[in-house]
Amino acid sequence: MNEEKTTSFESPIHARLQALHRELSGISEGDVATYIPELAKANPDWLGICVVTANGGIYEAGDTRQTFTIQSISKPFVYGLALEDQGRESVLRKVGVEPTGDAFNSISLDPDTGCPRNPMINAGAIATTGLVEGKTPLIRLQRIIDMFGKYSGRTMTVDEAVYRSESATGHRNRAISYMLRNFDILTGDPMPVAETYFQQCAILGHCLDLATMAATLANRGLNPITGQQAIRGEYVESVLGIMGTCGMYDYAGQWLYEVGMPAKSGVAGGIAAVLPGQLGIGVFSPRLDKHGNSVRGIRACSELSRDWDLHLFNRAGVGNSMIRHRFTAAEYGSSRVRAARERVAIGKHGNSVVQYQLQGNLVFATAEPIIRELTAVPAEVESIILDFHYVHSMNETACRLFHDILLQFHSAGRNVLFCAVNSIPHLRRVLKTKLGNRCDELFRVFEDNDTALQWCEDHLLERVLPPLPEMSIGADNYELLNGFSSDELVILRKFFERREWKAGETICNAGDAAREIYLLARGRVSVHYPLENGRSKRLAVFTAGMAFGEMAVLDRAPHYTNIVADIHTACDLISMAKLIALGISYPKIKIRLLENLALSLCSKLRKANQEASLLA
Amino acid sequence: MNEEKTTSFESPIHARLQALHRELSGISEGDVATYIPELAKANPDWLGICVVTANGGIYEAGDTRQTFTIQSISKPFVYGLALEDQGRESVLRKVGVEPTGDAFNSISLDPDTGCPRNPMINAGAIATTGLVEGKTPLIRLQRIIDMFGKYSGRTMTVDEAVYRSESATGHRNRAISYMLRNFDILTGDPMPVAETYFQQCAILGHCLDLATMAATLANRGLNPITGQQAIRGEYVESVLGIMGTCGMYDYAGQWLYEVGMPAKSGVAGGIAAVLPGQLGIGVFSPRLDKHGNSVRGIRACSELSRDWDLHLFNRAGVGNSMIRHRFTAAEYGSSRVRAARERVAIGKHGNSVVQYQLQGNLVFATAEPIIRELTAVPAEVESIILDFHYVHSMNETACRLFHDILLQFHSAGRNVLFCAVNSIPHLRRVLKTKLGNRCDELFRVFEDNDTALQWCEDHLLERVLPPLPEMSIGADNYELLNGFSSDELVILRKFFERREWKAGETICNAGDAAREIYLLARGRVSVHYPLENGRSKRLAVFTAGMAFGEMAVLDRAPHYTNIVADIHTACDLISMAKLIALGISYPKIKIRLLENLALSLCSKLRKANQEASLLA
Repeated sequence: MNEEKTTSFESPIHARLQALHRELSGISEGDVATYIPELAKANPDWLGICVVTANGGIYEAGDTRQTFTIQSISKPFVYGLALEDQGRESVLRKVGVEPTGDAFNSISLDPDTGCPRNPMINAGAIATTGLVEGKTPLIRLQRIIDMFGKYSGRTMTVDEAVYRSESATGHRNRAISYMLRNFDILTGDPMPVAETYFQQCAILGHCLDLATMAATLANRGLNPITGQQAIRGEYVESVLGIMGTCGMYDYAGQWLYEVGMPAKSGVAGGIAAVLPGQLGIGVFSPRLDKHGNSVRGIRACSELSRDWDLHLFNRAGVGNSMIRHRFTAAEYGSSRVRAARERVAIGKHGNSVVQYQLQGNLVFATAEPIIRELTAVPAEVESIILDFHYVHSMNETACRLFHDILLQFHSAGRNVLFCAVNSIPHLRRVLKTKLGNRCDELFRVFEDNDTALQWCEDHLLERVLPPLPEMSIGADNYELLNGFSSDELVILRKFFERREWKAGETICNAGDAAREIYLLARGRVSVHYPLENGRSKRLAVFTAGMAFGEMAVLDRAPHYTNIVADIHTACDLISMAKLIALGISYPKIKIRLLENLALSLCSKLRKANQEASLLA
Repeated sequence: MNEEKTTSFESPIHARLQALHRELSGISEGDVATYIPELAKANPDWLGICVVTANGGIYEAGDTRQTFTIQSISKPFVYGLALEDQGRESVLRKVGVEPTGDAFNSISLDPDTGCPRNPMINAGAIATTGLVEGKTPLIRLQRIIDMFGKYSGRTMTVDEAVYRSESATGHRNRAISYMLRNFDILTGDPMPVAETYFQQCAILGHCLDLATMAATLANRGLNPITGQQAIRGEYVESVLGIMGTCGMYDYAGQWLYEVGMPAKSGVAGGIAAVLPGQLGIGVFSPRLDKHGNSVRGIRACSELSRDWDLHLFNRAGVGNSMIRHRFTAAEYGSSRVRAARERVAIGKHGNSVVQYQLQGNLVFATAEPIIRELTAVPAEVESIILDFHYVHSMNETACRLFHDILLQFHSAGRNVLFCAVNSIPHLRRVLKTKLGNRCDELFRVFEDNDTALQWCEDHLLERVLPPLPEMSIGADNYELLNGFSSDELVILRKFFERREWKAGETICNAGDAAREIYLLARGRVSVHYPLENGRSKRLAVFTAGMAFGEMAVLDRAPHYTNIVADIHTACDLISMAKLIALGISYPKIKIRLLENLALSLCSKLRKANQEASLLA
């Protein structure tokens, strides 16, 4: 390797943030907030831009670790805590959710009920703080601080100087608090609530905190860095709903129009913006516009939204490609090696078994085309395999849609088989809740689609083929000994030896030296290829009449699979030494045996190649 | 098949709409609008619910074909037309985008500029209608009607009676129009604009129209039923942005909080709601609440949103699974059959070739983990294959991120190969625009990953192996003739015949009878498996020293592949008849030949099985 190739690469995402930081540093419009002296001390040139994705990518440019007080950005998060503490209905009885054209510090109470119009104006935010549980103001504050810790992944503290400054000048907010007490929106002494509110506004955070907090909301409440749940997922939509209509003071309409993400700003110059399911943005720059929003913060979010196509309402259709593949058993059979009459029957009737490989994230809109296809399944289909191997996630709605169609299929006498649903515990939970005891009867779960396919084939064969007695096969019935005369078979028998295994016993392990070709006289064996993760993939199942172990004998490599007797099994074996002896004494017999062997390898290779083609 | 199995199935989505229709039919709250006599004639019991998905699924319940006038629902669509006609900046200079607490028919003009606060109040809507291009009022109206036709897929007409009724009583709207003229928001005679506005409100539509129109917005302006583009994709976010903050009168905040979809309602009782990327909902029921929204319409949307988890802000993280598989060439080789020294070299150095199978819809947040992985690619990697086979779509942002990393890789002397990018014409367009003439040099496109992998292996072998002269192989160098003595080779030569093909000539076609085993003396051949869609998958490439055609000879089936000489090629052939003759005259030679043959089949089957395991 030459030196040059060890260069590490710069993420274009990081590069974009750096360039944006340089570009915006030149803007000197707007003024630092001065309504309390502590805020006026901020350096107007500070600028931090940070993006945290819902799967934990972190990108930073500029002063992303400079702390500042989060101010109004605290409001939606505390609102989320109030929702968790009181439930949505109780909170809605005290605080509305309608945007108002009025300024953030107007009293804006409903003239009849006294309810603040929304939780982003001061009146609504103070009312919300009053809804946080806690026996004492200290406990209440600690719960708020703990919550912010979960969102940011870092212990956040109150800036005492800013808090004292806010408290010293917060007469208007005290007036609002008493007005809320007057309407019984606050109960008890309203002054401690006002103090807690001043404290929550004075919590110190930095730009990376804001981005992480926003990413946690984007990730349905789960902090993507620490894996901690900061708010129950069901309340996230309400927090974001409020941020969507009321988060940016009286700039909210233009913000949603241009930037297209729920967001909240604070007078210290912070903005936290959320793209649900995708990412959080944190920006910090203290110069404010006339609405009280950070000038460079708005520019940063606006440019990133445009540049990276983040506008929530600018979405392409989800497409129709949630069905990755659709096979019938006639097109793609299980790995079980079948006797000739079975192969013919599966070729003829295999259209009655359909396998769907599903993919992607299943929600209503992506499950819908699958459900549409399933309801139109042809009348001759008796078994349907749903393979969830490539499904990343499935929400409750998608689970319920599958449940509903499953029930109908069952009533109509069809079989539905589920594969690889281990990664979607949700599906079983939903079905269990809805079906109760019938769940295990209706919800046929298979570890892999090969087992499921084999089940369907067996089911199909039972229906279309007359049953055969359990066979014990003599040497004249082995496929590998096809075409030999009875004299030749008498000779051959002398070269073979009989051996038996109980159900579950291992016949050979991967790594064992290869010594024999096995002809299956009675029973069933399966061949497993060991995978890295300790699991294994079943490559084949053999039943009476078939041969195995020939590959290892041919190339003298050790076995690379584990071969196990599924039930009590007997085999006739020919060893490598005997095979050589056979060639010396009876070359014609050996030629025929080798031709049969090559033919059987040939048919296995054809099957492997055809299936690979179908997958391509 | 028994009779029972021909039962057709009911979609659970359809069933849900039916149940919802029954459930909501009982609600009799609210009153039919009476401000013009024509509206008062509506049957208050009408109820239609319709869902159209962005990929064209249609679900209906109730009075979904009952026509009514769309009224205010016309506003966002005409706003979209004005954006197309004038551009975003011009429109924003005339009409704002901030929600207002005022009633829909208030004048609400900015006291300084005279701009209406937003296009959903009457003042803003009339100003918007004035921005639609058209030399005469008739042309303007016709353009509006044509636009609705594209959205709904159906010619929509003006209800003359309703229009006359609106016009006869529309004094307030005429006052607004003159006020707009006063501020030069409207230019020329404002009265024809007011008439066009009355007409657009009186356009007749039904519930399915509304759902289709909404689904068209959900599908970035492309009608999912007709495939017609109703509005340029870039303006959809603006239309939805306005609907998001101002679409539901002074219920907009609560609507976004509870239902979580941009929407617009009309006083005739219609609501159109949009879930971007996913679906549109149309509801019609004439009883209105105090805000002027359909009572049962709001209930329907609210219940569907809750039931099907449609809230825009309730999204799970996109997850990290956009990389389906990651292989090195050491783990998974190309289908090219390599000589022993090459196999060893690929096994040893194959970690320098990495193949990524990507999947899903690539936007910023789903491309980001891929980019993150690519920037951290180990120093020893010299070639990177990006396989887009399972990528459904890719937006401009994702294309640009790949471009940026591609450039860096190129500067560092790495190779980047793209496979299966045909379905993403966007990527080539973006790269072409950014790279100009360098595009074809840097953007290495391969039809399939096998060809790409082969290119990387060749590149790797060139670097790590000393070059060999172009070989012309004698019988003693064939892998199939391994281990024979020189006397035996002399005998064998008599059974073989030499034949030659020019570059591009077919050696055998799928379907040809199998007659010979081919030993490749010089040149290169490739084996193609024909697929249903006229394309083919390359199964293997053979070079000098290797054998092919043996499978067809063994099982006497016709060839199932096409075998083609890639360059000038010479082979030594042995026919089936000669093979039989060989066995009679020289059985030991035939035994060894068959053993070699079985061994070669064996190694091909092992490769096929191992690759299948890796894919599982």
